[in-house]
Amino acid sequence: MKKLMVTIFGSTGDLSMRKLLPALSRLIVEDQITKEIEIIAVGRRAFSNDDYRDYVQKNKNSDFDINTLKDVLTYYELNIDELSDYKKLKDYIDQKTNEDTVKLFYLAVAPELFPTISKNLGESHLVKKDHFNDRIIFEKPFGHSLDSANEIKKLLWQSFSEKQIYRIDHYLGKAMIQNIIMVRFANRIFEEIWHNRSIKKVQIIVKETDSILSRGAYYDKSGALIDMVQSHLLQMLSLVAMEVPLSYQSEDLKNEKVKVLDQIRFDQNVKLFGQYKGYLEEKDVHNQSKTETFVFLKAYVDTPRFKGVPFYLMTGKKLDVKASYIMIEFEETNEQRKWNLPLSTNKLYIKIDPLDGVSLVLNSKVPNLKDEVEQVELDFCSACRDVGNRVEAYQKLLLDSIEGHKTLFARWDEIEKSWTKIDELKKTNSNLYVYEDYEDLKNKIKREFNEEI
Amino acid sequence: MKKLMVTIFGSTGDLSMRKLLPALSRLIVEDQITKEIEIIAVGRRAFSNDDYRDYVQKNKNSDFDINTLKDVLTYYELNIDELSDYKKLKDYIDQKTNEDTVKLFYLAVAPELFPTISKNLGESHLVKKDHFNDRIIFEKPFGHSLDSANEIKKLLWQSFSEKQIYRIDHYLGKAMIQNIIMVRFANRIFEEIWHNRSIKKVQIIVKETDSILSRGAYYDKSGALIDMVQSHLLQMLSLVAMEVPLSYQSEDLKNEKVKVLDQIRFDQNVKLFGQYKGYLEEKDVHNQSKTETFVFLKAYVDTPRFKGVPFYLMTGKKLDVKASYIMIEFEETNEQRKWNLPLSTNKLYIKIDPLDGVSLVLNSKVPNLKDEVEQVELDFCSACRDVGNRVEAYQKLLLDSIEGHKTLFARWDEIEKSWTKIDELKKTNSNLYVYEDYEDLKNKIKREFNEEI
Repeated sequence: MKKLMVTIFGSTGDLSMRKLLPALSRLIVEDQITKEIEIIAVGRRAFSNDDYRDYVQKNKNSDFDINTLKDVLTYYELNIDELSDYKKLKDYIDQKTNEDTVKLFYLAVAPELFPTISKNLGESHLVKKDHFNDRIIFEKPFGHSLDSANEIKKLLWQSFSEKQIYRIDHYLGKAMIQNIIMVRFANRIFEEIWHNRSIKKVQIIVKETDSILSRGAYYDKSGALIDMVQSHLLQMLSLVAMEVPLSYQSEDLKNEKVKVLDQIRFDQNVKLFGQYKGYLEEKDVHNQSKTETFVFLKAYVDTPRFKGVPFYLMTGKKLDVKASYIMIEFEETNEQRKWNLPLSTNKLYIKIDPLDGVSLVLNSKVPNLKDEVEQVELDFCSACRDVGNRVEAYQKLLLDSIEGHKTLFARWDEIEKSWTKIDELKKTNSNLYVYEDYEDLKNKIKREFNEEI
Repeated sequence: MKKLMVTIFGSTGDLSMRKLLPALSRLIVEDQITKEIEIIAVGRRAFSNDDYRDYVQKNKNSDFDINTLKDVLTYYELNIDELSDYKKLKDYIDQKTNEDTVKLFYLAVAPELFPTISKNLGESHLVKKDHFNDRIIFEKPFGHSLDSANEIKKLLWQSFSEKQIYRIDHYLGKAMIQNIIMVRFANRIFEEIWHNRSIKKVQIIVKETDSILSRGAYYDKSGALIDMVQSHLLQMLSLVAMEVPLSYQSEDLKNEKVKVLDQIRFDQNVKLFGQYKGYLEEKDVHNQSKTETFVFLKAYVDTPRFKGVPFYLMTGKKLDVKASYIMIEFEETNEQRKWNLPLSTNKLYIKIDPLDGVSLVLNSKVPNLKDEVEQVELDFCSACRDVGNRVEAYQKLLLDSIEGHKTLFARWDEIEKSWTKIDELKKTNSNLYVYEDYEDLKNKIKREFNEEI
């Protein structure tokens, strides 16, 4: 295994405390990555290594043991606006690495800082363009519109080539999201019926019970459409609707996903933007904010495989339950109609949260004296096994970025296509409906669009 | 509901004690049939009604309450060889019934007595030919070869028309056997892939751990092929392999089942007849008996739908577990081969015994850091619900015979076709393999035919 140098910008931030350091710790403890690793925690504070470790110890809200990182973790003070600081960091890193070392630069900072940091990373030659061992990693939001995303891209592409850029959508790190591909392509019973002659509709649902909590400053500028749909939900949709990729390799998968994103057509007559009652009183929220905390959308994917099949996307805050899943509903059989059987349909659930797994709703004979049919659920709960040993999304995503597997990271054209669709949708923005609760939204959707959710 | 008169021949026998009276009791208690019912227990012994009820109380090994039948159960002494006794019984019954009364005559006696009883039932006009309210019910064996079955049929047809004859195969009364039809035709995901492009193989398995127990006298004359394959296993096979029936009605279903039975072709090179070690020492078994207690067969159904798909039939005594199920194995996907994924296949289990239900084996991503695939089982256990309130096969079968639903009863041409196939198979009978246990059989089958069971 190649030597590994992980540099984290924003090392005192929430993401580092809660996710990155614990994930790196587990990768080391579980022997998933090389022992020859060094982690440089970059920050503006004048910390010694001990100070930083104490800080982590105090601020981590995960059960990882900071001592597992003792020998590999170094704190490095840096002013992110100062090019000379980056040059010094380069000298420091150069002493410890060679051409073969994999160097990850994780931007665990607010997106406003991406331009400055990426410019300095490039100009200081900390990250050499086209040198694929030098990798830059950051999280969504990837802009807030096609234009802004384009600007960020241009900036990044000045210093790095696309292959060096790892855009993290932590949702894609979840096991069941990756499982969509396996469910579709490693199961004959699904592979063969995965098309519009058999699939009646698709639902992609991410329901939350929480409010926006303390994230008002960020959330009020983005809203559910940008925060959830542009990224997570459209990614899920493209995995469900894509054609068979040439191979299981990242680029082939992405080629197919991009084609789907390009073919999405939102039904402008069936969409609801909602805002929960009380949102305007939340901390850091503008008191006349029009930001939506709920979105319900109906879309079509105009490919031969899925033409005519409605895709329902729904996500929101303060709903009835925390639940994240994809539901594929199949058509009735000919015999159900001809024989006057109940028209209950087969449904495949790919469950992501809170308990991940797969389940299938089938029709079965009621084991009684009559010829009655009932729906039964065949369930496989993945999360119900090996409790306590779950793979965290970040662990998977970090490992993949170390190993150079880009399947779970968003390529630029995916971002571009999804923003194009979101921008189109926003142009015809509908009124904002202030909702009491999920029941209220359900009734509204039933009333207004005659759709069941 | 029409008035109901149930006459049981063999009313002191095992079947009456264990199955028929308890099933009738439950039908009455659960209000499934008319209150205007009378049960005549026919026997040769000189019992009073009280004697008979005492006898039942002593000999029943089921938890039913004889008092539930107190008001409707009458004992009637009759010599089955005496036509005059039948005539007297007719006078007795005539007093209590009219043209509209449904009259069931259940022959719960040894098959050797069928000819005598059916002849006398006809000649005494207890059962009037073509009068569909008059019904005669009996159990397998329906002969021991095509010739003998034909003889019985001729005899029966002299006195009754086919529509009056209810041939009970108690296996068909089991909820999950009836469920095969629902699984196939009320589930789009199965309906659409139920053919030889998607189905790789089918197994029909009835494994028992018991020996022949005290049934030597009967068993030694029949053996596993006649006792199990000709009836139960071929019935299951025909339900799995049949074309879509025109309707869910009995005659349409049977038309399709018969076509399948006609198209079965046994692979003469892959079959094993076994006899468990110690069988020759069993009570009432001939000490040089060649009767098989185990059968393993490979068959094809030469219809466009199933051509080329092997059907494995296996049944036997003294095997590893008590288990009865149908397993449909599907093909791998194209992608499994192209992407070098494990070639594990989808499998649908329709479980009949000991716990009935449906389960499905799928491929799923292992929720770990690697792109590994594992098999997971999605399970629905029907038997795990409403314990203590299970419908007994006989309850269902009696109800259907009362209501004139013939779906679960074998029509003559089904019997005829299955005997034709069994006779063909017997003509090329193979050697008898004396087996220690299931492991022994498994190894033998692997060695000799290179087949896995």
